[in-house]
Amino acid sequence: MSRQIHGGDIYSYGKIAGNIRLIDFSANINPLGLPEGVKNAVIENLDDFSNYPDPLCRELVKEIALHENVPESYILCGSGAADIIYRIAEAVRPGITVVTAPTFSEYEEAVRAAGSNIKYYYLHKGNGFNAGKDILDEVGPGIDLMFLCNPNNPTGNLTDKKLVLALAEKCRENKTILAVDECFIDFLENAGEFSIVDCLHAYDNVIVLKAFTKIYAMAGIRLGYAMCSDKDIIQRLGRAGQPWSVSSVAQLCGTAALKETDYIHRTKKLIKENREKLTLELRSLGFEVFASCANFILFRTENKALSRELLKYGILIRSCDNFVGLDNSFFRIAVKSKEDNEYLVESLKKLTPKG
Amino acid sequence: MSRQIHGGDIYSYGKIAGNIRLIDFSANINPLGLPEGVKNAVIENLDDFSNYPDPLCRELVKEIALHENVPESYILCGSGAADIIYRIAEAVRPGITVVTAPTFSEYEEAVRAAGSNIKYYYLHKGNGFNAGKDILDEVGPGIDLMFLCNPNNPTGNLTDKKLVLALAEKCRENKTILAVDECFIDFLENAGEFSIVDCLHAYDNVIVLKAFTKIYAMAGIRLGYAMCSDKDIIQRLGRAGQPWSVSSVAQLCGTAALKETDYIHRTKKLIKENREKLTLELRSLGFEVFASCANFILFRTENKALSRELLKYGILIRSCDNFVGLDNSFFRIAVKSKEDNEYLVESLKKLTPKG
Repeated sequence: MSRQIHGGDIYSYGKIAGNIRLIDFSANINPLGLPEGVKNAVIENLDDFSNYPDPLCRELVKEIALHENVPESYILCGSGAADIIYRIAEAVRPGITVVTAPTFSEYEEAVRAAGSNIKYYYLHKGNGFNAGKDILDEVGPGIDLMFLCNPNNPTGNLTDKKLVLALAEKCRENKTILAVDECFIDFLENAGEFSIVDCLHAYDNVIVLKAFTKIYAMAGIRLGYAMCSDKDIIQRLGRAGQPWSVSSVAQLCGTAALKETDYIHRTKKLIKENREKLTLELRSLGFEVFASCANFILFRTENKALSRELLKYGILIRSCDNFVGLDNSFFRIAVKSKEDNEYLVESLKKLTPKG
Repeated sequence: MSRQIHGGDIYSYGKIAGNIRLIDFSANINPLGLPEGVKNAVIENLDDFSNYPDPLCRELVKEIALHENVPESYILCGSGAADIIYRIAEAVRPGITVVTAPTFSEYEEAVRAAGSNIKYYYLHKGNGFNAGKDILDEVGPGIDLMFLCNPNNPTGNLTDKKLVLALAEKCRENKTILAVDECFIDFLENAGEFSIVDCLHAYDNVIVLKAFTKIYAMAGIRLGYAMCSDKDIIQRLGRAGQPWSVSSVAQLCGTAALKETDYIHRTKKLIKENREKLTLELRSLGFEVFASCANFILFRTENKALSRELLKYGILIRSCDNFVGLDNSFFRIAVKSKEDNEYLVESLKKLTPKG
């Protein structure tokens, strides 16, 4: 299949790397790995996986509602944020969708599959890939849907809450549904200053996406959710796919994960420290590094063969040549453990002439 | 959400049953439970669930291809057969879809969500709910899609292989895609005499659906697959939803399950014996029982309150009043373990005056 390439494809590259242990910097997964409480929950409940999952995910929805401080009626769970993205595309069937460039490519893939045209709002390198107030000008009559990733993937930068809310307002005036992807926001120590979940009641045209994928290192389990104050939208999303999309395994793991408050605390601290250190190291190696608030870093180099060269050391990084608005001089790496990050830097030193 | 009701809703009824252990006869799951090899595979590979799943399910596809004796290129995996059904609806976007009545309701739900009209081919009680040759007359110009469930859910009866192939031929002549759901066929001791998987190469308009859900008691894990010799159809199904729909857990469990040949052997024997015994018992209690080849039994009674009455004994059965073509005098029960079946019969005796 000729789908767009993503990070995390350890299955293709495992063979190329041969006997070397593959270290995957291409997928943005919490380096602490699956929380112990989640693993134990799986082991203790194996026999229950024979039964059909609860299509309404009632236990899990209750816990998410408490965690996010929103009513249960706001929540629809899916098998990863990607499932939710496809459900949005299918439920809205947009004529025109606005996405930023660069951003996570599945928004475009999903709405194109549903027949939508795309309008890009380009983020500029010179401006640190930050969205400006002119993003508001993208919204107008005939724009059915807009996606905003905050913090953005692959740039790692944040859009100011005021600007996101101004966008929500402009979208409401134009009957545009605004999907704000906050899948990486929980890596921030001050997530509350940027998340718009607390404003959902005021904007029934806004859907916020979250996932357990990255923050709880549950990418292989598939669990994400949408939040929206419009019950009709939630119902339409629910009908835009199979009723049992969230496995019993995912529902159980999600419920267990939400109890892991210490794990989250350690995660935020670790990511901040390791990201700052890695950013400095990359800069000292002469790379152009963009400021990130998330658990990954975008950087630029004239060595366009970098990802291929690192593979010799068993390191997989994300070439950004297939992101609209970037090219093959951009690369994205995950912030991983101290040891893995040091190994990456040592490997880069072997490749890169300083300065 | 006002979706159609299915079996297996132990989450709603658990509370009604109170302290009584709930025995779920409403979902058609293998009573042997999750195979030991599948449980062990989960326990041994927990750490891998941090990584994104392989979107192409390469290891699993290789094993399924060997198991089904088809080329790997024929196979697309999904998160349960239900995921595949929605992908078919989304990829085909049929104008008119033919379904039998009664049959599994998700075909209709999925194609209606994609904007299709429905044409029913009614199966008749007087004829044991068997499809006749007149089913061929349902196919003609303007019919984009047809679903046939074989053995059929909820009736449990089989359509003759010759008739299915005649239907495939008629569909091909009319550019109709025929989706044959063989999710229950592996419960048969002579599955090979009825499955059309060996004819897929000859009909590029036919998609066969299979699932791990029922036969391997993996309903909570979500794994199914489509097989089709038309690479374009397989590619369109792949694009009609998120790339990571099949979790790492499901891929691993599926690969482990396919090694469970003894489990399958025991399953076929157990289901046949227990189904025959249960059929006789139900008949001796005065119910009108329809001959089934699958792991469930459809029966009819004038006691339309039966499912509510059985709930007092902690027994959940499937009322068939929301199946098109049936009414509230029909009920479906799974064939379960000897002990569970005996408990059901004993409970029925307390309710039902004989003869």
